[in-house]
This record gives sequence, structure tokens and C-alpha cells, in this order.
Amino acid sequence: MTGSSLPVAIDAMGGDHAPDQIIQGARLAMESGIPIVLFGTEEALHGVDDIETIFVSEVVGMDEDPGQAVRRKKDSSLIRAAEYVRDGHASAMVSAGNTGATMASALLRMGRLKGVSRPAIATPIPTLEGDHPVILLDSGANAECQPEWLLQFAEMGAVYARDRFDVEKPKVGLLSIGEEAGKGNSLIKDSYDILNSGDWQTICKAEFIGNVEGRDLMSGTVDVVVTDGFTGNVALKTLEGTAKAIVSALLSAFSSSEDAKAGAKLLAPSLIPLYQKLDPDSVGGAVLLGVKGIAIVSHGSSSANAILNAIKTAHELFEDDHVANLQSVLKP
Amino acid sequence: MTGSSLPVAIDAMGGDHAPDQIIQGARLAMESGIPIVLFGTEEALHGVDDIETIFVSEVVGMDEDPGQAVRRKKDSSLIRAAEYVRDGHASAMVSAGNTGATMASALLRMGRLKGVSRPAIATPIPTLEGDHPVILLDSGANAECQPEWLLQFAEMGAVYARDRFDVEKPKVGLLSIGEEAGKGNSLIKDSYDILNSGDWQTICKAEFIGNVEGRDLMSGTVDVVVTDGFTGNVALKTLEGTAKAIVSALLSAFSSSEDAKAGAKLLAPSLIPLYQKLDPDSVGGAVLLGVKGIAIVSHGSSSANAILNAIKTAHELFEDDHVANLQSVLKP
Repeated sequence: MTGSSLPVAIDAMGGDHAPDQIIQGARLAMESGIPIVLFGTEEALHGVDDIETIFVSEVVGMDEDPGQAVRRKKDSSLIRAAEYVRDGHASAMVSAGNTGATMASALLRMGRLKGVSRPAIATPIPTLEGDHPVILLDSGANAECQPEWLLQFAEMGAVYARDRFDVEKPKVGLLSIGEEAGKGNSLIKDSYDILNSGDWQTICKAEFIGNVEGRDLMSGTVDVVVTDGFTGNVALKTLEGTAKAIVSALLSAFSSSEDAKAGAKLLAPSLIPLYQKLDPDSVGGAVLLGVKGIAIVSHGSSSANAILNAIKTAHELFEDDHVANLQSVLKP
Repeated sequence: MTGSSLPVAIDAMGGDHAPDQIIQGARLAMESGIPIVLFGTEEALHGVDDIETIFVSEVVGMDEDPGQAVRRKKDSSLIRAAEYVRDGHASAMVSAGNTGATMASALLRMGRLKGVSRPAIATPIPTLEGDHPVILLDSGANAECQPEWLLQFAEMGAVYARDRFDVEKPKVGLLSIGEEAGKGNSLIKDSYDILNSGDWQTICKAEFIGNVEGRDLMSGTVDVVVTDGFTGNVALKTLEGTAKAIVSALLSAFSSSEDAKAGAKLLAPSLIPLYQKLDPDSVGGAVLLGVKGIAIVSHGSSSANAILNAIKTAHELFEDDHVANLQSVLKP
């Protein structure tokens, strides 16, 4: 399957700036040569005649309960987009909407890869030092985990790091509260033993570097950080919240006086690259690993540019045969 | 017991800049009227004749296993300082050394308050918005917790917020992965139910505001954040690591060109207050809540000023009768 003629299915209804920024992002993707099919209500997609559209009658809200939403709203953009991928009409799906509902739609309609106990959300964390983002998984799909699942997260994360960021031999770390083996709670101790032994490192061409700590997430010293979905989600939101608090305090400081404004102007050329590195728009969204298809969630505040990057990521993963690569390392 | 004549017991051997910065911090505290007794080796305290000193023969290293260290090194500065507090010769102990060993020394020598299941480490998180730090507990003492322990952390955290930061009616949140009740792992769901009912809020003059997320840690919307020691430690190190990565990237940017240097100079008056707010030196260290005495751990890189602030905190908590206040809300 070459796939270059298959479109990426886009949920036009999800995100703080839907549908305008989503449609705009889809248009940018088409201009760069990626075919698109947009799923949305007739009202939202009114006047869009340069992109293939499929009308739906239901919309899943940002704060709706994911489980209920996907069970009830069978004609929602999320469910319909997931079915389109399942049926081979689209290469991947992309949404900036309700993360849980997007993941649930993908899981229910595409199904799991053979041998996968639990799919996991893999989120790219921008690093300031390293030359590519760090992959954190599970960042929220499974609040309660078993050690064997964390092994699968490690396997899938390693394949993903290679397919997405060209990391030849990904360094995989286990998120804990001390570097020494034996630090952490019982899940982490048991997972350490499983990750440290066995042939998965050879099969996945990865290296287990042991425990890592929260401070390593942005350091660039590790490529894939494995954790349960509760800890991963807390870490992700702590990191995002800290970065946001500091950046917004900086921006206030930059306009706090005439001197400060003049200083900020002089500093701008040095600060803008830094700001871009931290910008979640540039990293292309989180992906659900372990389902039979590609499903990407871009953050809720996605701009057209964030959507473009998410679509590019989805398209490239499909071209790289990422789902087949994942299946090849998983024990059926 | 008025306590104003009781000295604070200082571990002169712990921390990256021990003993010099520790001694210097102790001296600053004495100058501000707080009596001090320094615990250290004869070599380390050689020439110190303006502060009361007690010589010890053993030192606990920063990376030593806490359990082994405190069992074996009975003549270490940590164990001897904890005994001094237990025996009523000192008001509190302060160390910038091995966190686990300091906490273990305090726990073993001072003992638990009546009714306390597990003491917890309470760490002040600097906020940029609020007018006082947020208290995170447990930030690392207990990797595995039970819901009843989290209730005690909430009770102790509320009393601590009042005694330390004069928060009249502390807002207490439970760290989870979504604001709605029912979000999180089983520990959090069970803890939510316990925290949401009962009379602890009345007894502790506190308000349970439900689940909070990692992004709320620096927001100033909550005064006390309750979690298990594994999640708390991951969140703390993620927050510290993120702040450090951004600040060091900023500092590089500030010297990256002549224009940038000139801009940074103009911005300095607006940025310095921000930097000071984020500086862990200013918040005075973490405290072990639930033991019969006051034990404070300042971070490893503590300067004399950080030690001074930790000593002031210790002294004030003693003057406020903090340990008795904690005991009064705990069911024996």
C-alpha cells in the first residue's frame, strides 16, 4: 500500500478555534501535497468547496465524558473519521478536540493491534537541549497499569521514536523518583525488572537506561520516557503549567516599563527561537499507539499551523508504515 | 515552653556547599537573634568560635542509602541533631544534606505524633501569581500510600499552611488527572471520597476544593496540594526541571549577542523580582510533618541565604507551637 493517494481524515469540529483554524490548517496541508477529507456539520463546513467534506450530524464537546460520547454519538465527526480510517478510505485521523473521546473513537472503531494489552497516548515533549522532542507515554490513557503494559509502552515508544524522529537506537527510561534500581513504587520496581531483562531491547533496537526523573523530561538525555497514564498525565500537565506560568510572567515583565519594552525588542531575535522550541504547535500532537491505524490529537488551542504539523506527522507515519512496524515488535 | 532561648540544631555537613555556606548561614541567623548549635566534624568546624558547636565523628553522604546510613552512623551530624531536638535541647533541626537520611533521622529519633500513620514531606512550591508558595505533600517520603494517609496529609498540610504562611482557611486540592470527581487512579478516587466528607474540614479550618491538576501547582489557586509521595516527587522534580531548563536557556539567550546583552541589561529590573520569586533559596526548605519535632531539609545547593531562610522558618514554626497545633487536629 503506497498510500500517497489516501487522504488524512480531519475532525473539523474539535478544538478551541474550530472550525476556522482547522479548515485553514487542512488547506495548508493540501497545498503541501497531502490529500484531506474534512468531517464536520454542514453548517461548520458551509462554503468549503476546495476540500473533500463529509457531513455529520453530531459533535462531541470538549468536556463531554469520552465513554458516553462515543457510545451515543455514532454520527459524530470523531466516530465517522475513525471508521473512515478503519475502512481503508483514509490514512489517519487528526483531531484537536476531546482527547479521551478521540482516543476512544480510535480504539473502538480501529481496534487494537494483536498482542496489545492497552494502547497508550504518546506525547512529544519539546526539549531545549536535545535535537528532537522526548516521547512520554502513557500520558493519560490508562490511569492504572500493570508492569507488562509498561513493557509494551517501551516497545511501542521505541518504534515510534525511530519512525517519527529518526532516532536510530532510542534510549528508553522509566519515570521514577530516583535513578537507582529499586527506587519507586511497586509498579515501577516490577516494571524495572521486566524492562531490564528480556530480548525486547534487541527486537526494538532500543536501550533501556534505567530510571529517569521528572527533571530529565526536558533534558534531552533520554528519548522515550515510560510511565503509567496517571503519573504521565500529572507530569505532562505540571511541565506544561510550569512553562506557561514562566512564559506569561516573562511576557508581563517585557511590557512592564519603557526600558523593559526596549530591552525586549533587542532580545527578540535571541528569544524567538527559544519560544518556538517550547511551542506545542510545532511538535505535531499526541498519538494513540497500539491501535490498528493512526490517530493524532493536537492540543485544544491548536492554530492552523499546529493542525498542519499534526497532519504532516500523521501522513509521514502512514508513509513509514508505522502501524506495521509497531505490530512487528509486539508478541501476538 | 517559650523556646526563645533554645537553639536551632544545624547539620554543618550536608549540602553541596557545606560546611562554609552552612556556617555562614548559621552566622547570619545568629545575627538576626536566633541561637544556633552546629553539628559537624572537628575538622569541618575548626576555627568556628562564635557559634556553639558539637563535634561528631560520622558524616552521611548525599547519595548514601538513607535507611542504612541512619542505622549505621549513630554518631553522624543528622542523628545527633535529631537527638538534640528529641531531648529538648534544640527547637528544631535543619539540614541541606541527604533528604531521605534527614527525614529518617527525625522519624527514628523524634518519633511520630500520636495517630499519625505516615509522616510526609511538605515542600513549598514558589508561585508567580499567588502571594505565598503552594504546599505540596507528600513530596517523597511514602512511595506507596493509602487513602487514610492522604487524609492526614490534608489535615497536616492545612495546619502547616496556616502556621507557616498565615493562610486563614487553606484551600486543599487532591492532585489528579482531571477536575471532576471520579478522575484518577483508585487511590485518588478513594481519597476523594474521604476528603470530601467528614468533619476534618471544620476541625482544620480548611476547604477541600476537589481535584487539581499539575498545571495548578504554580497557579496560586490552591494552597495545599495532597498526593502520594511517588506522584508528588515526580511532579516536584518535573516542575523544578522545567523551570531550570527554561531559566538556563534564557540566560544563554541573554548573552548570545551584543544586542541581547544590552536588552538584558534594560530588562534586568523587571526580571530580577521574577527570578527571586522562582528561587528555591527564598522559600525556606521542605519540612517533615507528623514527627514530634521540627525537621527541615533545605535543597542540596543551598547558599548561606537559603540556610538562613530555613533556620528562620524552623524557628518561627517552633515559636508558633506548630507541632502541638498538628497534634491537636490529628485523631489519636
